[in-house]
Formats: sequence, C-alpha cells, structure tokens
Amino acid sequence: MKLNIALLPGDGIGPEIVDQAMKAVKAVAQKFNHELEYNEALTGAAAIDAVGDPYPEETHELCMKSDAVLFGAIGDPKFDNNPKATVRPEQGLLAMRKKLGLYANIRPVETFESLLHKSPLRRELVEGADFVCIRELTGGMYFGEKGRKDNGNTAFDTCIYTRDEVERILKLGYEFAAKRNKKLTVVDKANVLESSRLWREVAQEMAPNYPEIKTEYMFVDNAAMQIIQWPKNFDVMVTENMFGDILTDEASVITGSLGLLPSASVGIHTSVFEPIHGSYPQAAGKNIANPIATILSAAMLFEYAFDLKEEGKLIRDAVAASMIEGFVTEDIAEGPAQSTSAVGDWIAHWIEKN
Amino acid sequence: MKLNIALLPGDGIGPEIVDQAMKAVKAVAQKFNHELEYNEALTGAAAIDAVGDPYPEETHELCMKSDAVLFGAIGDPKFDNNPKATVRPEQGLLAMRKKLGLYANIRPVETFESLLHKSPLRRELVEGADFVCIRELTGGMYFGEKGRKDNGNTAFDTCIYTRDEVERILKLGYEFAAKRNKKLTVVDKANVLESSRLWREVAQEMAPNYPEIKTEYMFVDNAAMQIIQWPKNFDVMVTENMFGDILTDEASVITGSLGLLPSASVGIHTSVFEPIHGSYPQAAGKNIANPIATILSAAMLFEYAFDLKEEGKLIRDAVAASMIEGFVTEDIAEGPAQSTSAVGDWIAHWIEKN
Ligand SMILES: [Mg+2]
Ligand SMILES: [Mg+2]
Repeated sequence: MKLNIALLPGDGIGPEIVDQAMKAVKAVAQKFNHELEYNEALTGAAAIDAVGDPYPEETHELCMKSDAVLFGAIGDPKFDNNPKATVRPEQGLLAMRKKLGLYANIRPVETFESLLHKSPLRRELVEGADFVCIRELTGGMYFGEKGRKDNGNTAFDTCIYTRDEVERILKLGYEFAAKRNKKLTVVDKANVLESSRLWREVAQEMAPNYPEIKTEYMFVDNAAMQIIQWPKNFDVMVTENMFGDILTDEASVITGSLGLLPSASVGIHTSVFEPIHGSYPQAAGKNIANPIATILSAAMLFEYAFDLKEEGKLIRDAVAASMIEGFVTEDIAEGPAQSTSAVGDWIAHWIEKN
Repeated sequence: MKLNIALLPGDGIGPEIVDQAMKAVKAVAQKFNHELEYNEALTGAAAIDAVGDPYPEETHELCMKSDAVLFGAIGDPKFDNNPKATVRPEQGLLAMRKKLGLYANIRPVETFESLLHKSPLRRELVEGADFVCIRELTGGMYFGEKGRKDNGNTAFDTCIYTRDEVERILKLGYEFAAKRNKKLTVVDKANVLESSRLWREVAQEMAPNYPEIKTEYMFVDNAAMQIIQWPKNFDVMVTENMFGDILTDEASVITGSLGLLPSASVGIHTSVFEPIHGSYPQAAGKNIANPIATILSAAMLFEYAFDLKEEGKLIRDAVAASMIEGFVTEDIAEGPAQSTSAVGDWIAHWIEKN
C-alpha cells in the first residue's frame, strides 16, 4: 500500500518525538512492504518565526494531499509571556482543525500494567479499563456567539448545535461501538439544556438503526463520577465539545499514564494523529522527552487512516515490550532512564525483529 | 440563643432522616441552653399531593420567617415515569432556590478515616483531603435564554453572568478562604469563554483586597484532573453553576462517603441545609436509610446560620464516634447494621453524654 504522510513536528519537544515515531513508522512500513512517502511542514511557533503564520497555506496544502497527518505539539513560552503578540502558535491548531474539518477528537483510555501503580485510582478499579472518548470539536459553546453587554459588565457565551453536527458525531460513535464492545454512552445534560435535548433526541432517533449496540444516556455530572468509580463500565463515550474537554482530561489521568496517551482528530478531510501532551518546552532539545504517546499516535494512524490493524498492533506491542523491559525515559523509569532517541531506536528495532 | 428552624422533610426517605437530624439538634440545643422552635412544612411530591404545588406559598412564608431551613430530599418515581405530569417535585427545589435567593451552594469535601477504603482513590492521595466547593447556583447556562431555531433543528443555550453575580459569589469564596487555609481556587475557562473572562477579571480586581489569601486560577478541565490527582491541594474552590455541577459531583465521590455528605445553600434570605443525596424512594419507610448526611447538614446549620461552632463540632464528633464504633446503617456497616432511628438515637445520646 502507498502511505503518504504529512509530518508537522511543531514546537518544543515536537521534532524529537515525531522523529522517534517515524522510526517506528518506517520499520513497520518496511516490514509490511508499504511504500512510504512523507513530507514535513511548518506549524506553530516555528511557522510564525519562519513565515509569520502558525498554519501556513503551504502546510495546509500538504495536509490536504496527504493520507494522514502526524503532529507533534505546538506552543512556545515566548508567546505566552507576551500579551501583545497578535498571532499565537495555538491559533495554528485551531486553523488546522477548522480547515481540515476535524469535527471529532478521539482519545482511547487504556492502562499499562507497568504504570498502574501511578494511577490515582485503586488498582482493581482501573486495571483493564479500556474505553474511547469521542469529543465533538467544532461546535458548542467554544465556537458560539460570545460577547459583552452593559458596558462590559455582562458577559455571555452561546452553546449551539445543529442536528447535522450531532448526527455526524453520533454516527462516528456508533461506528466505534460497533467495532468494539457494542456500547455507546451519550453524555449530555438533557434535564436542563436545550442543546442537550437535541443531542438526546437525535440519539434516540438513531439508536434503533444500531440494534446490536446498547445506547446508554448519562448526565455529564454523573459521568464525571462514573469515570472515577467504574471506569471499566465504559466502552465508547460521545459528547459535545466542552463536556468532552472536561471529561477527556479527567479520563486521561485515571490511567496513571497521562504522558503516554495518543489521540486522533478526524473529520471531513485528512485526519490528524498527535499525543495529548503539550510541547513541554523545558525539555526541548535535551533528548529526555517521552516519545511513547507520539509512537502510539502513529499506531492509531495505521489503524484509523489506513485500516492497517496488524501494523498498528505491532507498534503497540513494541511499546508494551519497551515498558515491560523498563527501557523507558526518565518520567516513567523505575531503573536507569533512557534517552528519547534510544527509546525510539529500541522500539523500531523490536518491530524489525518481531 | 433562640433558634427558629423550618423543617422541610420532603419525599422518600426525607422524613425519616430529618427526624434523626432533629434528635441531634434537640440534644445540642438542650445541652447549650438554646431555645429551639421548629415548624414543619410541605414540599416536593408530598406538597403536590396535598395542595398541588411543590413549594406552596405557606411553606415559603415559613422559610422566610425562620432562621434556617433543614431540608430532607425531594423526588418521587411516580412523577419521573409520567411524562404528562405538568408539575414535578424538583420544581419545588428550583422555586425555593429562586424565592429564597440562594445563589451559592456550599459542599464541604471531607474524608472519614473509617470509610477511606471505600474511596476509588488510593488512600495516601485522599487521606486528609479537606476542601469546600462553592458553586454559583442561580446564573450561567442553566438559567440563560435557550431555545430552538430552524424548525427545531438547531438548539441553543446561553451562559450569562453579570459582574454583580460574580462579585457576590467570589466574596463568599474569599470569606470562606479567610476562615480556612487562605487559598481560593477560581475555576473557569477564561482561555475560551467570555463569561469566564468576566469571572477572572472580577477575581483579579478583588484579589488585592484579600492580601492574606492566595488566589489561584484554574481551567475547568485542569480542575477535573487535579481533584483526582491532588485533592489535598484545594482549600476553597469557587466556580460558576455548570462547572460547579460537574466538579462538585466529581469531588463528592473521591471521599468514598457520597451518602454522608451535607451541603448548604446560602443567599439573600434564609439558608437551606440538606444532604447531597436524593430521596431514595426504594428505602422510604424501611428505617434503613443512612441519616448521617442530614445530621451533618444540621451541624452546618449551627455553624453557618447561627455561627455556633461548638454546637456544630459536637454533632460532628458524635457522628465520627458512631462511625468509629461501627454503629451505622447497612450501606456502610462492616459488622451488624443498625436502623436509621437507632443511629439517630445513638448520636443524640452521645451528644447528651459528651
Ligand atoms: Mg482540555
Ligand atoms: Mg450534579
């Protein structure tokens, strides 16, 4: 198969971790005889410095003609500390989401046996937890009309959703549930919010079309409790933008492996795969950052963008092996810590051998 | 001191648990020579059945002329299962909040040594956690303009706050922090929402007036993580209505003692004290419900409504003693379970003796 990938390393530790992920991608491509083409483009602070735009047109064109985007991280403290900056790295991310029509963010929540002791939850509750959070990414209160009235003394935000927006994300939820354990939890606040009532209405209309899937409805405040109390009860959770922002972050810490979690953003055009952690500027260039979240994002890329399940699984197995072996970076090392590039090499080598 | 209390037992287990709380209230009042007057009024399903209104005018008048309201719980399944019901018990709660001007809900998050093993969190993380969540109760998206457009295919909700609303709740937050460990965490989403930017603006203006208090700002998604990871870092948390709805529920489960947590709603007129659990209709009339959350609500009533700290502490000590003794109801009993009324008697008796 021909695999055409756009690389957007971005800022901070982005370039280093994307390098390691690419070692795994190349090893897998070679092993399975895929023809790999990849091209790098600028984004974030790096792109502002070079061309004054955090998501330049040239970068967008590359993304559009590629089959998948592997993304590092963006953000640079020199912009955070400058309130006068008119353009910021994070705007690159928003521009990319918008131009690529990325309406869904997908975050798997999985545990690693060797990191369970780092979970804030008791082992027996979280061990084996395995679910997927699907967050609507382009609607809701973050994008609705907002402003001030009464000389700035009244502020408002509007949460707004159309039936089409709700339908397409619920459809994605059902597709995921169909491939997994056949349970979809629709999270809303339909007892209070009109937008949530639309979500529930649409879900109730769609549910009969998926008779093999159990549709469950849960209020967002209850979901915030259930994620801690019974994380193993979830299979696929789908929710609107802001609820998803809160719940996916909550869910990400229960595994004890926050720095290891990958994500995918999918939509109308090319899908983007990226670690959920940030650009971690303090570690940039030191060869100490943990590349696993990005390597696992590459595994998702094989699975989601190309439907290449075996390839994805081989990358996951390699990551699992490095963790069992204890060949990991300082953030999770119990014994001697390895460098970013050494972990990347080890994982690529494991893929070649296995 | 003259203590004039309105009792609103409500539905389900409400009457039984309020009875037990009153045993403690009477014991404390007698011990400290307070003159106690209390009057009962109808609310919830009980009030609908009797007079067709879940918060009758007569009940409101009693609340207005009392110094504090001790509330049980409302809700009855016969209304939940009847979509045609035009009046519902829960409307009584909303009417009460509105008419009494209850703009703040206060939930202490405390742990009980004997229940720590029931916490989903690892003991060392949660042991000793002790913070207060203050939730704005009358503004935000739950009360803003909402509706449909485009033949019902677009739904919207509006989150709206005025400077005055934000100021009065932050003031309460600072007052609490001043009496506690001098730290106020203001939770918002100011990087995205205009209403949150107003909250932060007001907080930043007010903070210099409280130089002894450390004001900390936290995004809501981060707060959802911190509550699980580092619950001991919080002292007083203050936030808007919907964020508070989600975060206080999340916070309530980390202690392992969800069924034991009291709350207070305070505002313009009389304050209301109530357990955070519901009316638990399955247990109604069986003398098995746990009365502790209501008894602890009575402790809050002494402390908040009358500034009677010793009285409140004696009730708390009595509750703690019952738990150490294992003289508790079936939901938390490790050994033989006691009835609701037996626990109430035991606690009142302990107060008399100590
Ligand atoms: Mg977030
Ligand atoms: Mg709630």
